[in-house]
Amino acid sequence: MVTIPRRLDTEDAQLALERIQDLLKKHALVENLVRRQEEGDEQADIVEGLLRRQHEVELEHTLNQLHPADIAFILESLPSEQRRLIWSLVNAKYDGDILLEVDDWVREDLISSMNREDLLAATEDLDADELADLAPDLPADIVAEVQKGLTNEERAQLLEAMGYPEGTVGAIMDFEMVRVREDVSLEVVLRYLRRLEELPDHTDQIFVVDRQDRLQGVLSISQLLVNDPDTNVKDVMKTDYLSLKPNDDDTDAASAFERYDLVSAPVVNRQNRLIGRVTIADMVDVIREDSQEQDLSRAGLHEEDIFAPVVKAIKNRSPWLLINLCTASTAAVIASQFEGTVSHIVILAFLMSIVAGIGGNSGNQTMTMVIRALAVGRITSKNFTSLLKREFIVTILVGFIGTIVAAGFSWAISGSFKIALVMATAMLCNMLIGAMLGVLIPIFRDKFGKDPAIGSSVLLTFVTDSLGFFIFLGLASIFLL
Amino acid sequence: MVTIPRRLDTEDAQLALERIQDLLKKHALVENLVRRQEEGDEQADIVEGLLRRQHEVELEHTLNQLHPADIAFILESLPSEQRRLIWSLVNAKYDGDILLEVDDWVREDLISSMNREDLLAATEDLDADELADLAPDLPADIVAEVQKGLTNEERAQLLEAMGYPEGTVGAIMDFEMVRVREDVSLEVVLRYLRRLEELPDHTDQIFVVDRQDRLQGVLSISQLLVNDPDTNVKDVMKTDYLSLKPNDDDTDAASAFERYDLVSAPVVNRQNRLIGRVTIADMVDVIREDSQEQDLSRAGLHEEDIFAPVVKAIKNRSPWLLINLCTASTAAVIASQFEGTVSHIVILAFLMSIVAGIGGNSGNQTMTMVIRALAVGRITSKNFTSLLKREFIVTILVGFIGTIVAAGFSWAISGSFKIALVMATAMLCNMLIGAMLGVLIPIFRDKFGKDPAIGSSVLLTFVTDSLGFFIFLGLASIFLL
Repeated sequence: MVTIPRRLDTEDAQLALERIQDLLKKHALVENLVRRQEEGDEQADIVEGLLRRQHEVELEHTLNQLHPADIAFILESLPSEQRRLIWSLVNAKYDGDILLEVDDWVREDLISSMNREDLLAATEDLDADELADLAPDLPADIVAEVQKGLTNEERAQLLEAMGYPEGTVGAIMDFEMVRVREDVSLEVVLRYLRRLEELPDHTDQIFVVDRQDRLQGVLSISQLLVNDPDTNVKDVMKTDYLSLKPNDDDTDAASAFERYDLVSAPVVNRQNRLIGRVTIADMVDVIREDSQEQDLSRAGLHEEDIFAPVVKAIKNRSPWLLINLCTASTAAVIASQFEGTVSHIVILAFLMSIVAGIGGNSGNQTMTMVIRALAVGRITSKNFTSLLKREFIVTILVGFIGTIVAAGFSWAISGSFKIALVMATAMLCNMLIGAMLGVLIPIFRDKFGKDPAIGSSVLLTFVTDSLGFFIFLGLASIFLL
Repeated sequence: MVTIPRRLDTEDAQLALERIQDLLKKHALVENLVRRQEEGDEQADIVEGLLRRQHEVELEHTLNQLHPADIAFILESLPSEQRRLIWSLVNAKYDGDILLEVDDWVREDLISSMNREDLLAATEDLDADELADLAPDLPADIVAEVQKGLTNEERAQLLEAMGYPEGTVGAIMDFEMVRVREDVSLEVVLRYLRRLEELPDHTDQIFVVDRQDRLQGVLSISQLLVNDPDTNVKDVMKTDYLSLKPNDDDTDAASAFERYDLVSAPVVNRQNRLIGRVTIADMVDVIREDSQEQDLSRAGLHEEDIFAPVVKAIKNRSPWLLINLCTASTAAVIASQFEGTVSHIVILAFLMSIVAGIGGNSGNQTMTMVIRALAVGRITSKNFTSLLKREFIVTILVGFIGTIVAAGFSWAISGSFKIALVMATAMLCNMLIGAMLGVLIPIFRDKFGKDPAIGSSVLLTFVTDSLGFFIFLGLASIFLL
């Protein structure tokens, strides 16, 4: 067995990435030479060919000392052409693992560069649940071909796993479960385990089922090891375990793993029959993906990577910017109703964006807090009012501090005490509107089953911009003209 | 042993929370009655006292059916007064677990409501690493008192754990390790384990050490179970394990756990002596906390909860708003230099905020991507230029779409083709500036060792606002007057 080094931190990964990039550069230089000398004598061709080959060997050597997870990282960090060169040099036995590991858009790219034989070789050793993960990206005939090599049980598992939509426990469960009966002794269990080549990854408990495969309890490995081998499974198994249903939300399952520090959990169907298992490794991926999605969605982005194709990036980014353009234009139209006022006191034009901006920022702080509290389920119909009240008090107090600064600034720039007063009033009003919306928008979106993060900030900024302009210029029209 | 139900999703948690809130309401009603009738006859007092007691019993019963992790959640979701009432009803044997589970600000509140005896009782059964987590929040004399009850080894562990700063592996490691020698057989290991009451949580591997406690390898539980008991530890232990150093960054360690699907990892000192262990449960907390911190810091917030005290909230929120106020005011001062231009063509006042806003939004999209790529280490000095190039191309293409819409809008609102042209040019320029800053700001902050997320967006918005105003009004001054 080869020893695959595991690296601790991102710096080590960067070093590996940079080394690969160095080698790629040398390789590209040689390629160029070869191309330029295409008309040259045969001798030179051979020398260049050897040189290129040598770089490839070096690349290959460097690559195959890395862990599949790290190769996946490098593939994600390279432009398409270099990625495909590297992919062709990777030891074929890791192909399946790496395909499972990389991001969707890289996987598509890699699969499209592979021929039928490569794909079959990469997929034939995968488990049913892993195959189910890859299947949507594989050509249909490959999936059909690989299915032929499966046992009936595995084929049923593949169909089962492919039947659940993304975001459910069913879509991420695996089928590597160790089952025992409750009426046997631990000695029997130990002997049974010794017949296996290895335990499935993350086996911290063994599932105790009856003849109909209905889950009766779980036997933790810890109990198996510390108890007398003559003890019966029944006497040491736990019955207060957490079990999941295949249609449960994967985010909920991840929270449960986090709360109860679980390593694995059984998945059962309605008849309480054991159909799969979920492990903490899947859950960590869910937690990470959820947090990335939230990050990106806040900037109006879907999954995108800095090395994804440009066309993908344009499709991803333009809708959000167009929406922002529309809301900003609407706010501008509202403000332009006060053209008369602004033409009289031009300085208002430069102050109005401050009012709008602070309202949006303040509301965004409230909204960030509320979205987080909603995510963990901390907001109920019973504490909603006290929450709103609290945000109002905080905003008024913070607002007073800001208002004094803003009033001082507008006085300095305009020399008018009245303008400063209008500025202060409008700013405080707009901050309160921001706070109210920061609480209400996410709660309403949540109530109607929509993700509270996406869209909330557009709506908030739109209202604080439009109303900010309206209140400020409106007050100015009344009191300053 | 009591069966503690584990709940799957946030809805169940909300139900429990609502039920507690209901009971609290009833309880508060009775309390009020009692207070009002304080002058009344003794008879009534006794009746009310009984009623109140009955509600407390009901609350207590409901509470103590919950898992400690769920009680922690409920304590975090209640205002301070109710929180303390609930805390006084919780079964004392869970006190320690719950204190470890709750957020810092709740912990402080709970500890301040406990007397000496309660604190001693809650802390005396904790492990050294758990005690180290609580110690900063405990009164010094309690820590001293509890230390007396520790063995010498535990006391050394406590000092060790308290010696590492937050954010390092040392600060989160525990000391519950099972150690064996490499020259014994698996049978001996099995017998040794059987003498324990239970294995430490998350024991997926046993550490193989020499006489000086230096780590020689790890024996996975899987290997222990599937191999013949006569095999020697030496022959089945793994030597290509990941080990951590106590000063390693906890975020790096969490990435390694995620990448290699680990359940536990040994922590060794410079001499390769085994000093602790980190488990996936700690790592999940690190991942969750990091993502929450990023979320909040993007809105200019530190750790805050919707039920944290108001004073805390004000301190937390005002600095960010004041900074925003300053940058917005500076941008307004820059724009006001063009007072003459704006007083001639008032409509510019309403268009200029669109230019500024879109530049900021577009730059923010780029920045979000770059920050994420930096976090996983995907950006090296070798791909930096191609990254910048890519973002320029994407922005120009997305910008063209936006520019056409914006030009159309300004034409419609102003009726002037020249204004539309100035608008389009300024917008595209500002978007490119946003893209450039979106790449450069986080990379520079990262280079100088600062967290790329915090502060980046303030700087970005400041520049896109100021330059947006400047470019738009500047172009207008040149071409429209």
